[in-house]
Amino acid sequence: MAKPAESDRLRVVLVATRNPLNIGAAARAMSNFGFRHLRVVKPYEPAFREARSAVGASDVLASAEQFENLADAVADCTLVIGTTAVRHRQLHHLLRRPEDGARLIRKRLAASRVALLFGSEKFGLSNNDLSHCHWLIRIPTNEKNISMNLGQAVAVCLYELIRNAKSKERPEKVALATSAEVDRITKMLFDALRESGFLDMRRVADSEERIRRVVRRLKIQERDAVIWLGMLRQIVWKLRSGREAEK
Amino acid sequence: MAKPAESDRLRVVLVATRNPLNIGAAARAMSNFGFRHLRVVKPYEPAFREARSAVGASDVLASAEQFENLADAVADCTLVIGTTAVRHRQLHHLLRRPEDGARLIRKRLAASRVALLFGSEKFGLSNNDLSHCHWLIRIPTNEKNISMNLGQAVAVCLYELIRNAKSKERPEKVALATSAEVDRITKMLFDALRESGFLDMRRVADSEERIRRVVRRLKIQERDAVIWLGMLRQIVWKLRSGREAEK
Repeated sequence: MAKPAESDRLRVVLVATRNPLNIGAAARAMSNFGFRHLRVVKPYEPAFREARSAVGASDVLASAEQFENLADAVADCTLVIGTTAVRHRQLHHLLRRPEDGARLIRKRLAASRVALLFGSEKFGLSNNDLSHCHWLIRIPTNEKNISMNLGQAVAVCLYELIRNAKSKERPEKVALATSAEVDRITKMLFDALRESGFLDMRRVADSEERIRRVVRRLKIQERDAVIWLGMLRQIVWKLRSGREAEK
Repeated sequence: MAKPAESDRLRVVLVATRNPLNIGAAARAMSNFGFRHLRVVKPYEPAFREARSAVGASDVLASAEQFENLADAVADCTLVIGTTAVRHRQLHHLLRRPEDGARLIRKRLAASRVALLFGSEKFGLSNNDLSHCHWLIRIPTNEKNISMNLGQAVAVCLYELIRNAKSKERPEKVALATSAEVDRITKMLFDALRESGFLDMRRVADSEERIRRVVRRLKIQERDAVIWLGMLRQIVWKLRSGREAEK
């Protein structure tokens, strides 16, 4: 999320969740991605109590708000988005892929609150729940196993929301060794191959060229040039001292 | 993933996982996103047994392969990617955002196998594990709570892999050596360095790991693996015969 104010406007809403581990997992993903406001609607009471009292329960869980119905839980939001795994059920809503949905959600968060809804583990969001939604997000899961674990679905949706926050951070380009450095390494390798008898065994005239090409094909990085040279120098030194011993 | 063959080439590797629920959650996310090949390295045995025998355990879990060490688990892959939450630790690897990493992984999957590694819940991947990796993916989590739940991290990474299924990736033209080949070359290099006294000169405890990383960064091509092994073997042979002569 570009600005903290924007992530602060999201409300993650868990509807009729049964498993305390899933409530905890949803809260953890929220914390991982910088979202703070969790709302639970008609949770299975013992589950919610257990999740809140778990060791290491986060601030997200501690400050979670509980509601008796969905309408109240989304009352202060201008956009309400449901999530679903279903593809064949008669849906009266537009289904969006997460990346398309996330773009629209971010846009809205710049100005006002958005609710992102997740249904129960077993049944998902009911038709009644869905009637509160503007449109739905469906994570493109495999046809053979469309239904995601709740905590993982929350993680994927929230990840999609923060995914492009800092997309300017590009990985640094790898600095490669200069030709001169690669040449020094190649020459040292030739010395080692000559001392070891490797070059004598090759009858082909182009073996030095071939080895040079082989070395060029390596992508030796600038930072590694010194250690390669050091390793080869020591090997050459040892080979020579071995030869002295033979005399 | 555009083609089933591509998702079939991914190996999800869980290293030293302790919690059976997390192994199950990783398998479920794989199934959701159409990936089939799970490998576990040194799992906490009861956890792995429990996960496999859980009611409704998926095909992914049933066919999971178990390994005693990471090198074996990634031996048939040409690209090995680690995942980490860490940002301040001294890392010797390039860190990529998931979207950048996923693009490169998809590219490689068009031609050969890729391993995606997840460390233990408590410690993540060890420095030794990381020394098998070409680069790392870091999910851009919030500074106040960077560490994700394992199953959720797996879900986010795999989601990123299938997210742009439609956009076609062209396979990389250059065929790279497999991890097993690079390992053989690395071991032969270690022999040469040991024989030459290079390793004895280094007081730092991590020098073997460092050298392993340096070799990984070379991007040795498939067609060149044999000649590198041949050159090193000859050097080692000569170093040893020199030592014999000294006696």
